[in-house]
Amino acid sequence: MSIFSTETLKNMDAYVPGEQPQDKSYIKLNTNEFPFPPSEKVKAVVNSEKAEDLRLYSDPTCRILKEAITEVYDFKTENVFCGNGSDEVLALSFLAFCKKEDTVVFPDISYGFYPVFASFFGLKYNEIPLKEDFSIDTGDYLSDCGTVYIANPNAPTGLTLSEQEIEKILIANPNHVVVIDEAYCDFSDCSSMGLIGKYKNLLIVRTFSKSYALAGARIGFALGDRELIADLEKAKFSFNPYNLNRLSIEIGAAAIKDREYFEKTVSLIKENRKKLTDDLRQLGFTVLNSGANFVFAKKDGVDGEQLYLKLKENGILVRHFSKERIKDYLRITVGTKEQNAALIDTLGRNLK
Amino acid sequence: MSIFSTETLKNMDAYVPGEQPQDKSYIKLNTNEFPFPPSEKVKAVVNSEKAEDLRLYSDPTCRILKEAITEVYDFKTENVFCGNGSDEVLALSFLAFCKKEDTVVFPDISYGFYPVFASFFGLKYNEIPLKEDFSIDTGDYLSDCGTVYIANPNAPTGLTLSEQEIEKILIANPNHVVVIDEAYCDFSDCSSMGLIGKYKNLLIVRTFSKSYALAGARIGFALGDRELIADLEKAKFSFNPYNLNRLSIEIGAAAIKDREYFEKTVSLIKENRKKLTDDLRQLGFTVLNSGANFVFAKKDGVDGEQLYLKLKENGILVRHFSKERIKDYLRITVGTKEQNAALIDTLGRNLK
Repeated sequence: MSIFSTETLKNMDAYVPGEQPQDKSYIKLNTNEFPFPPSEKVKAVVNSEKAEDLRLYSDPTCRILKEAITEVYDFKTENVFCGNGSDEVLALSFLAFCKKEDTVVFPDISYGFYPVFASFFGLKYNEIPLKEDFSIDTGDYLSDCGTVYIANPNAPTGLTLSEQEIEKILIANPNHVVVIDEAYCDFSDCSSMGLIGKYKNLLIVRTFSKSYALAGARIGFALGDRELIADLEKAKFSFNPYNLNRLSIEIGAAAIKDREYFEKTVSLIKENRKKLTDDLRQLGFTVLNSGANFVFAKKDGVDGEQLYLKLKENGILVRHFSKERIKDYLRITVGTKEQNAALIDTLGRNLK
Repeated sequence: MSIFSTETLKNMDAYVPGEQPQDKSYIKLNTNEFPFPPSEKVKAVVNSEKAEDLRLYSDPTCRILKEAITEVYDFKTENVFCGNGSDEVLALSFLAFCKKEDTVVFPDISYGFYPVFASFFGLKYNEIPLKEDFSIDTGDYLSDCGTVYIANPNAPTGLTLSEQEIEKILIANPNHVVVIDEAYCDFSDCSSMGLIGKYKNLLIVRTFSKSYALAGARIGFALGDRELIADLEKAKFSFNPYNLNRLSIEIGAAAIKDREYFEKTVSLIKENRKKLTDDLRQLGFTVLNSGANFVFAKKDGVDGEQLYLKLKENGILVRHFSKERIKDYLRITVGTKEQNAALIDTLGRNLK
């Protein structure tokens, strides 16, 4: 650190993203990317004519992207906020809604960025332990003591909460925003979108990085009551008004409108997830029931880090976390049939 | 505001960007965009093959973009930080270097985002009045009381400070970072880059939005001592690690490598600026000597807002600021020869 750095920066534990080797030499099952390419409609808007328009600023209101989102989800554009990836949406929600005197709450095992954001904004937070079976006990989130962050499906477990369970949390926290991070929700049926008209404190955060095969385009969005969205807009206009570039705005709009491709490819992932889960169990793994595009698995008597390293040696990247409670688990992205088969084959050979 | 919003958000005065009509019906001289298209090399990397790769996360280290920047400017990649527009770079610099106990200092008339960032991060700031002739008195910036932000050329005046003057500020502020915002520097000869090896407290912020015709791609960068850059990287990894999308990383690298196109188009802007300045003076305007791709001008006895509205009525957008000291000035982006001629013609007809 330089002598000029602030206390906030010194005290920060930066988020450690999964490895991103740029040489494409690995079967990459470590960062929950989609194994299929984006929609053909996306390719159609990435062309030299659009490149020519890059001399002009992007639309700070992201109008065409918001309109495309509202066409699919039947909200008004005033209910939609767009960000440079869902990470930026989450960051701005911390700024907009997490008060200094409150305590932000989220599970101890969840998206690793929540505590990083809390420390970035100098906030107190409480990491509530998951139950023994890694499920969330909604009873732990009824104290109305601060903004609640719940990933649904949760990461890296893949476990989901029902709409009824989320509703209990919303009712018990009338004075605080409940943020439901639905990054992986398209791979399950656990969305809380149906509750948006009913609860003013519900904010749903979504991403194009997973189910739309657009991790590299950096597009996230939030859905919620118009007042919450207006607050996020104000935060954004105080931080980075032109947060989405011109191409990503067009790319997101094109991707979400292609429902046929979306349905088809997401179905394929669900099929592949079922087969991968079965195959891992066949090999003696404990695999949690995943509602996401990854599975969370361990094998009794096998060290998680050693297995991660062994797979890497064999050209397969998966994600390992050193946190005590989950250090023997691996988070494995659901890939194509071929990628999953290669993984199962490698595991079979190495676990003998 | 919602009942959930934080005090920080409530107290914030969001930045008001220039108008961004999306229909292209105006001659747009209001947000300092480049009137020529980006390099042909940029168009070459915006294609369906690159679109296919969007399923993968972008490189959080922005390696190829940093390497392209170091090729041009002869630094090491450890001296370069990349952001989602220079606004994000500036925002992260506030977080990384502006201590709560200090007072951030910048001119009263400068980039309107500096006070917004200061309030975003809850910091005290001191807006130091420019001299009567709108120049910066470097004597006002020698107190070593907090991070200094100086736009050079300054906006919206277009006036520049010499390297010697910047050096005085650096020497007088050994305990604080001096941020020189060189967004418009390619249109003049006032860069402080030569001082980077010499002063550990110098951070230079640059953008691809102006001289590289890429406002819509959202690419900014900073140059400075490796410790300052490491601090910015830490801040970024705590906020939004994948802050640049895949396409913008490629686009920026392609643009900066095409030196021939850069030199040619920037020269044209300088020529056009000279002619525009002369023509405005011919019409009786006071025009400051600009080192940027805009001019700052007023005509005695003519109300600035009225003139802005009259031009808009005639299909020409320029920027007007309501701040008392400059409310009779217009900031006019230097356009193509034809755009500038249309402006002069419209002014001539309407000022009779």
